[in-house]
Amino acid sequence: MSVTAAKGFTAAGIAAGIKQNGNPDLALVVNTGPRRAAAGVFTSNRVKAAPVVWSQQVLADGELTAVVLNSGGANACTGPQGFQDTHATAEKVAEVLGAKGTDVGAGEIAVASTGLIGVLLPMDKLLPGIEKAAAELSEHGGEKAAIAIKTTDTVHKTSVVTKDGPGGTWTVGGMAKGAGMLAPGLATMLVVLTTDADVDSPGLDSALRDATRVTFDRVDSDGCMSTNDTVLLLASGSSGVTPEPDAFTGAVREVCDDLARQLIGDAEGASKDIRIEVINAATEDDAVEVGRSIARNNLLKCAIHGEDPNWGRVLSAIGTTAAAFEPDELNVAINGVWVCKNGSVGEDRDLVDMRYREVTVTADLAAGTESAVIWANDLTADYVHENSAYSS
Amino acid sequence: MSVTAAKGFTAAGIAAGIKQNGNPDLALVVNTGPRRAAAGVFTSNRVKAAPVVWSQQVLADGELTAVVLNSGGANACTGPQGFQDTHATAEKVAEVLGAKGTDVGAGEIAVASTGLIGVLLPMDKLLPGIEKAAAELSEHGGEKAAIAIKTTDTVHKTSVVTKDGPGGTWTVGGMAKGAGMLAPGLATMLVVLTTDADVDSPGLDSALRDATRVTFDRVDSDGCMSTNDTVLLLASGSSGVTPEPDAFTGAVREVCDDLARQLIGDAEGASKDIRIEVINAATEDDAVEVGRSIARNNLLKCAIHGEDPNWGRVLSAIGTTAAAFEPDELNVAINGVWVCKNGSVGEDRDLVDMRYREVTVTADLAAGTESAVIWANDLTADYVHENSAYSS
Repeated sequence: MSVTAAKGFTAAGIAAGIKQNGNPDLALVVNTGPRRAAAGVFTSNRVKAAPVVWSQQVLADGELTAVVLNSGGANACTGPQGFQDTHATAEKVAEVLGAKGTDVGAGEIAVASTGLIGVLLPMDKLLPGIEKAAAELSEHGGEKAAIAIKTTDTVHKTSVVTKDGPGGTWTVGGMAKGAGMLAPGLATMLVVLTTDADVDSPGLDSALRDATRVTFDRVDSDGCMSTNDTVLLLASGSSGVTPEPDAFTGAVREVCDDLARQLIGDAEGASKDIRIEVINAATEDDAVEVGRSIARNNLLKCAIHGEDPNWGRVLSAIGTTAAAFEPDELNVAINGVWVCKNGSVGEDRDLVDMRYREVTVTADLAAGTESAVIWANDLTADYVHENSAYSS
Repeated sequence: MSVTAAKGFTAAGIAAGIKQNGNPDLALVVNTGPRRAAAGVFTSNRVKAAPVVWSQQVLADGELTAVVLNSGGANACTGPQGFQDTHATAEKVAEVLGAKGTDVGAGEIAVASTGLIGVLLPMDKLLPGIEKAAAELSEHGGEKAAIAIKTTDTVHKTSVVTKDGPGGTWTVGGMAKGAGMLAPGLATMLVVLTTDADVDSPGLDSALRDATRVTFDRVDSDGCMSTNDTVLLLASGSSGVTPEPDAFTGAVREVCDDLARQLIGDAEGASKDIRIEVINAATEDDAVEVGRSIARNNLLKCAIHGEDPNWGRVLSAIGTTAAAFEPDELNVAINGVWVCKNGSVGEDRDLVDMRYREVTVTADLAAGTESAVIWANDLTADYVHENSAYSS
């Protein structure tokens, strides 16, 4: 399961004591080869955590041997000391893997952190934790690794896709964490994907960018972009199969789509998952811009929480965009009922059934043939409580 | 005092029965001259309510004799019938003013509406209401007019500034309503300002744009832009005084500033008023962009509600902008305590006292000498309740 579903990977998840409550907080994922190709996409926030800066650097050569991830602290906005701590973390992983017979330098180790911004990590706990994790590395450790990266997540998130291609069977699997600060660019905190397909670094990069563009980048739980977002894809090549690029991208996208949907389903305080379909847009960019504007409208998010099909708030959100449309040609459906037609009153809003967790808002721009789907959550008192009651 | 503080204006506010609860819902403001110059600024939302489209048209010649405003319905997204209703409303005002001896056409009457989007106005109540309001027009009617335009406002908002200039005494006064959907472009639902200064339409337009740019346009309560925002400035010239343009703009700005502050202070469900000062920006546009990004960060708004000086959320908001800055040169103060210095941990966050309603967040971009102030509110469970419990 998770990051160890694909052959050629071991993983572990342990409690290092970074979290004060004693929950698991350190994960290690190791690519045992034969190939060690990798690609990554990172937050577009200009304020980047130390581990993001580090991992972008070490990925420059398209190779990674291991990824170490911690919850319990984001190591963001921590200055030069924070970067030194990330470096020391990678050095420690290289050292313990070396002791186990894997010759590896710190420059082949990606680091990812999640938790409170602006606090230094307790290195006196983190470094011994790496030794403990290395001792527990296993081909069945994916599940534990997924659990160790949780912060406010109520469940751990994993996904696996296995394909039978012309050359044989290959797998893409992965794990994700993220329950708040979910907004494009990209839309999650931490994701590690692994595959035993025999794909080189440019092939991984292309597949990962294609997949994240239409999955994690289209999740907008709360409009807040993290400083730590990291998605890594590691290939061991141990299946010996090199899939067709389209088939490989499709599989990576399937896993990303599944994980992204799980993130929305577990978003902080949410009671509804909102699927925003923008159809008949002049361009895909228009569709995405309109979808995001709808996704970020707090008044609409409140209305959906209250199971109120308040389509006026959809129109007022569309109206703030630069997309091509005529106001008197807009149509809006909520759960399939076209409550707004031609920019005005449509079908009876009492026909809309909003009892279930998933709510679909369809915005028809009547301006072309392009479309996009953005996922969002409602805005609830629980979200306010969860994010005002403690520093996270 | 409100819109009748300046000489040359009468006003009324009555209950026409548009609101089902019987509260006042119709206001009428009449310029009795001698001058009838006017200027207006309107929502930049591309989905505009019928009264906004109408009022923009009738203002094209820079003259207005009267403004009729209703609460209890926004007349937005109501199609051709909605526009006909606005037209009929203006015709009715012209008719009743004509019966009182004022020769005026519908093209000199601005209309403004506020309330639920997507519902036609009850014209069988609104039109008789206009007759009733006309019968009650008075030089002391400003207060009642301000009360009649309230929706979810808990208090009515008025402001008056009187100046003694070289040519004599003149006054700018006004009223405002708005408690939700407050976001730039512009940041309120309805505002009517009046003055007895002798200023022509281009002078009014210039003063109004200068004033709203740094007041209503810098209020961002909930990031949601209305379809109905309207700010009108009417000059009767009855003081006989033509102030210096700078003095006049200053007075209009004072009144707008006061009203904008009142809007933030009465925003739906809010428990904190957040003054966001962006300093040392390379340009004023940078300062405004950063201020708005901070103002719209739901996680920060929750933290401030919880009296948690979570400066990491300020940095993550700054990081999403295109403004000029270096991440490791950013400084952030909350209520005067520099909790973030050089992009990292600064003074002890426990020193921050957030008990009072007004909270100041200062973001120092260390990139220049420009600055801007944006006003916002916190995000509360009460906001969620108020906006999920009913259609508004």
